[in-house]
Amino acid sequence: MKYCAEQRLAKKSLNINPIQRGGILTPEAKVALHEFEDGYSVCDYCEGRLDKINKPPIHEFLEEFSKFINVDIVRPTHGAREGKFIVIHSLCEEGDKIVVDGNAHYTTYVAAERNKTDTIVVPHSGYPNYEIKVEKWKETLDNVLDKYDNVKLAILTHVDGNYGNLTDAKKIGKICRRKGIPLLLNCAYTMGRMPINAKKLKADFVVGSGHKSMAASGPIGILGLSEEWEDEILRKSKKYPNKEIELLGCTSRGAPIVTLMASFPHVKERVKNWDQEVKKTRYFVKEMEKIEGIKQLGIKPKMHDLVNFETPIFEKISKKHPKKGYFLYHELKKRNITGVKPGYTKTLKCSVYRMDKEQIDYIINSFREIVDAGIGI
Amino acid sequence: MKYCAEQRLAKKSLNINPIQRGGILTPEAKVALHEFEDGYSVCDYCEGRLDKINKPPIHEFLEEFSKFINVDIVRPTHGAREGKFIVIHSLCEEGDKIVVDGNAHYTTYVAAERNKTDTIVVPHSGYPNYEIKVEKWKETLDNVLDKYDNVKLAILTHVDGNYGNLTDAKKIGKICRRKGIPLLLNCAYTMGRMPINAKKLKADFVVGSGHKSMAASGPIGILGLSEEWEDEILRKSKKYPNKEIELLGCTSRGAPIVTLMASFPHVKERVKNWDQEVKKTRYFVKEMEKIEGIKQLGIKPKMHDLVNFETPIFEKISKKHPKKGYFLYHELKKRNITGVKPGYTKTLKCSVYRMDKEQIDYIINSFREIVDAGIGI
Ligand SMILES: Cc1ncc(COP(=O)(O)O)c(C=O)c1O
Ligand SMILES: Cc1ncc(COP(=O)(O)O)c(C=O)c1O
Repeated sequence: MKYCAEQRLAKKSLNINPIQRGGILTPEAKVALHEFEDGYSVCDYCEGRLDKINKPPIHEFLEEFSKFINVDIVRPTHGAREGKFIVIHSLCEEGDKIVVDGNAHYTTYVAAERNKTDTIVVPHSGYPNYEIKVEKWKETLDNVLDKYDNVKLAILTHVDGNYGNLTDAKKIGKICRRKGIPLLLNCAYTMGRMPINAKKLKADFVVGSGHKSMAASGPIGILGLSEEWEDEILRKSKKYPNKEIELLGCTSRGAPIVTLMASFPHVKERVKNWDQEVKKTRYFVKEMEKIEGIKQLGIKPKMHDLVNFETPIFEKISKKHPKKGYFLYHELKKRNITGVKPGYTKTLKCSVYRMDKEQIDYIINSFREIVDAGIGI
Repeated sequence: MKYCAEQRLAKKSLNINPIQRGGILTPEAKVALHEFEDGYSVCDYCEGRLDKINKPPIHEFLEEFSKFINVDIVRPTHGAREGKFIVIHSLCEEGDKIVVDGNAHYTTYVAAERNKTDTIVVPHSGYPNYEIKVEKWKETLDNVLDKYDNVKLAILTHVDGNYGNLTDAKKIGKICRRKGIPLLLNCAYTMGRMPINAKKLKADFVVGSGHKSMAASGPIGILGLSEEWEDEILRKSKKYPNKEIELLGCTSRGAPIVTLMASFPHVKERVKNWDQEVKKTRYFVKEMEKIEGIKQLGIKPKMHDLVNFETPIFEKISKKHPKKGYFLYHELKKRNITGVKPGYTKTLKCSVYRMDKEQIDYIINSFREIVDAGIGI
């Protein structure tokens, strides 16, 4: 069978899938990807450490990236989840407690589980805002520190993948610092979209996702840490003293890291325009909410491009539509809009990140048309 | 700074670096790579599990691949080392013993170390063959089983990356099976080069490296296992019951896996011609050994394309050459041959895998010229 002779519809359409909007490659990254397409392509002049390679200039890139997010040390990983696992695996033992927020990505739980650690959840405020409040964080942390003597880490989702809520990382970072609990800030949805200043946020560790938010081919992520943690996180092999154990020597040893590097100048610029993206998203929400039966979930006003709409109108239409729940996917496809899961109508998770006004208006009008036509059935 | 605007010399030259010969992309893989270049590109129609995706046909590919290497279950990983870590992490606890061969890749040791397990080494036969003998394996295993009650795993390097020695995996597999010790066969240098039959070799687990030996972009690997180990290795999250903990939900969630898939038909065919590759390598060795001061290390005759030559003649030349130890790298570069580490002259690790006779003769003649010119200094 011929595998992968097919084309991606998402590539030729207006793709509103939030996990994919920030990972669209730049022209520079496409060129680099082609040049470095073969296996071990970055290893031509390697002397034993990925992060020290000069040709291509991985070492220099990592140093510049550390300034970009204001951490002491940066290492490439295979993604945000792998970075989380590295930190938990280095700091925690079986049975240790980790405080997480109630909007944490599933990979936070799974990384904790893989390390046989327990997660204690700071609950969100429930429907419709699902907010992680600073006071709730403090309260949960205090309770947990009273109850257990093995609370080793806190993981805060900077912006979550369900509602696109921005947490007050600065205040929460301060609380964790005061209580002596190391904080890992999960910037999968923020690093590469908005400016990140890890030291200002008092994050001991930050993880980013290149294929999600930094215009890179997957799988690639970033782990940033302050130097006080270097000996734990980047401890070396006894037998091979130049190899970092948690990275199994080398992590991203091929194509994805060169796309991350090639897209970096663009990413450095685009985070400066983050306010514009927030503005666009708020416009998008305002117009979408004019459609009967569409309502934004999560904190208002939006502080991030990921939007989750409650869409009872789609549910209603799907009951009478010949295509049932699949009507929405097909109607959007007809209009060259992709990124919505086939069959799903209860809610609509989407993003117009880096679209222009014409595209955004086209999307809004498309939804208007689809609802009008649907109501008429 | 503009990152990755540069070109890879290795791409336009005769590259004799053994780690890179098997990872050169097929034309189909290049097309697929371009199409699936963006972040999360394989996730357009994902319903929560990478290995179950139908579009692109990852699920079907993994099923076919399992037949290709004759295992029950296959999962994609980020590489051979990550697969090793998954198995050790699932089976072993701190302080457990793992038996490894004396030619094991450094990542075997580092994966064991990352799990706080101890490795017990089956020594090779030393200079010049560095052979892992079956009797030595049996003897070491017997001793270790006498001494410890927590020997949990054996890892055998099918072909090692130092000498290109092929171990007798079938006999060693039988020994491990008899003693009740699970065997992980590290096929980084064999899966995709020669036919692999995991069940016949009595390997409980096999790991392969796509970017090393399966014409794929890195980082991508394969983990194969027999179904009796499914519950341990692929145990599910309690909170997210469809997510496999050791894979953190999803591993190769982007471009590399589509290159692995697109190259698969080619790889299936090429392993059938493995005998030809061995023949070519033996010819290469025979001709190279005609040059004074070049001698093949490792078992003879060669059973794999990776060759390590002892090269005292290069050492000798380097002492008088104006470019010192760098003369070899430069002389080869002049002749459009790459893959040799700059400055290194004691030994020459190389491979002519998938080169034609004309190219191989060109390489041989180049070395002849370089030595003749060097002697003349
Ligand atoms: C909030 C959040 N954290 C973590 C992840 C996982 O990112 P990665 O694929 O880089 O592991 C995601 C994306 O799926 C996410 O949205
Ligand atoms: C014998 C052997 N095992 C393991 C590896 C590691 O392979 P990977 O980069 O896929 O982890 C290599 C390659 O470097 C190898 O030669």
